[in-house]
Amino acid sequence: MARNKHPEETVNLILDTAFRLFMEKGYEYTSIQDIINNLGGLSKGAIYHHFKSKEDILYAVTDRMTSESNKILAGIRDASSLNGKEKLKTIFKMSLNRPVMDDIFTVAPNFNNNSKLLFNILNETIYKAAPDYILPIIKQGISDGSIKTEYPEQLAELIILVANVWMNPMIFDNTKEEIYCKCMVFRQMMDGFGLDIIDDEILDRITRLADIYEERK
Amino acid sequence: MARNKHPEETVNLILDTAFRLFMEKGYEYTSIQDIINNLGGLSKGAIYHHFKSKEDILYAVTDRMTSESNKILAGIRDASSLNGKEKLKTIFKMSLNRPVMDDIFTVAPNFNNNSKLLFNILNETIYKAAPDYILPIIKQGISDGSIKTEYPEQLAELIILVANVWMNPMIFDNTKEEIYCKCMVFRQMMDGFGLDIIDDEILDRITRLADIYEERK
Repeated sequence: MARNKHPEETVNLILDTAFRLFMEKGYEYTSIQDIINNLGGLSKGAIYHHFKSKEDILYAVTDRMTSESNKILAGIRDASSLNGKEKLKTIFKMSLNRPVMDDIFTVAPNFNNNSKLLFNILNETIYKAAPDYILPIIKQGISDGSIKTEYPEQLAELIILVANVWMNPMIFDNTKEEIYCKCMVFRQMMDGFGLDIIDDEILDRITRLADIYEERK
Repeated sequence: MARNKHPEETVNLILDTAFRLFMEKGYEYTSIQDIINNLGGLSKGAIYHHFKSKEDILYAVTDRMTSESNKILAGIRDASSLNGKEKLKTIFKMSLNRPVMDDIFTVAPNFNNNSKLLFNILNETIYKAAPDYILPIIKQGISDGSIKTEYPEQLAELIILVANVWMNPMIFDNTKEEIYCKCMVFRQMMDGFGLDIIDDEILDRITRLADIYEERK
């Protein structure tokens, strides 16, 4: 393959290749050299021109994975036709139904050997998803009376931490059955906060994703 | 000081010294060289014979710190005079009131730059604390009627994950005020599960630990 003339194409080629290798071999077991070997003649210098380290590539890969779906989430957050609680339900549903979710669960990265990937997801969840997406929705819910809490920041964090991290079958290597049980406990937790938004459709979708992950292992 | 002839004594000497330095200077500001300088002539090689890195020493220090207090927790778990819900409350209270907690919050490693440390705590929480301490108590609570859940494994995990990880001020670098808000949300979560065990004494103790951490920073 010839070297791309346009930097953006080069970056995309590096990210495509790195993403595939990270998912196949695991981040820890993929070296910069592995990525270079799979770039069809692109030099080491070309990689280091764009990325300082393998870790830098990981951040760019995960940023690219989430940036498109974040637009969908922002659309729900900023919609005017729904109240806060409805938005929270919609954002869960839409988030789970993104086609990219099937891909992520099919390639199934091994979090067990990948503390940095987990760290990245945890930071993304607490410092981005919670304040940028869930918090504004909860605040709207407080205003329109559909959500009741005195601690919107902390409630936003807790909900998205449990949903994104604890209920992610890849992180704790859960079976479909375990994920079903986690969903039921999550539903009870949400109900306890007056957030009766986890319906059977959401439950089915989460266990379907756990199924895709289990089949792949 | 002469080199210890017995490996266990050498290990204990290293851990005693490392613990003292971590407490005095903080984990981040203590180097392997600092530890060596305080070992009275023990060689670098002797340290590396037992520990691969400073992080390894931290794990051993915290393991030693927690192993004794784990016996207290096991004692509560195995006590015959309390029902499940009372045991859960007691284990929270005792766990927070261990003198070792003040030490841990004084050592205060910086989780922000340390994905492996976080990974370690997360694994300890999900694969040890949840099944070994919380789950047996919840199961007893189901038997004696003081706790109601169809999913004891998952409830145990969720409770201890939220308590040990999310509410740990060191992990997300929280202020005392933020920890207070987290406690209130945690209390509401627990109440939602019928576990009305988070009282003002527990709340005061958690915010006091957050205070120790904040003063230290």
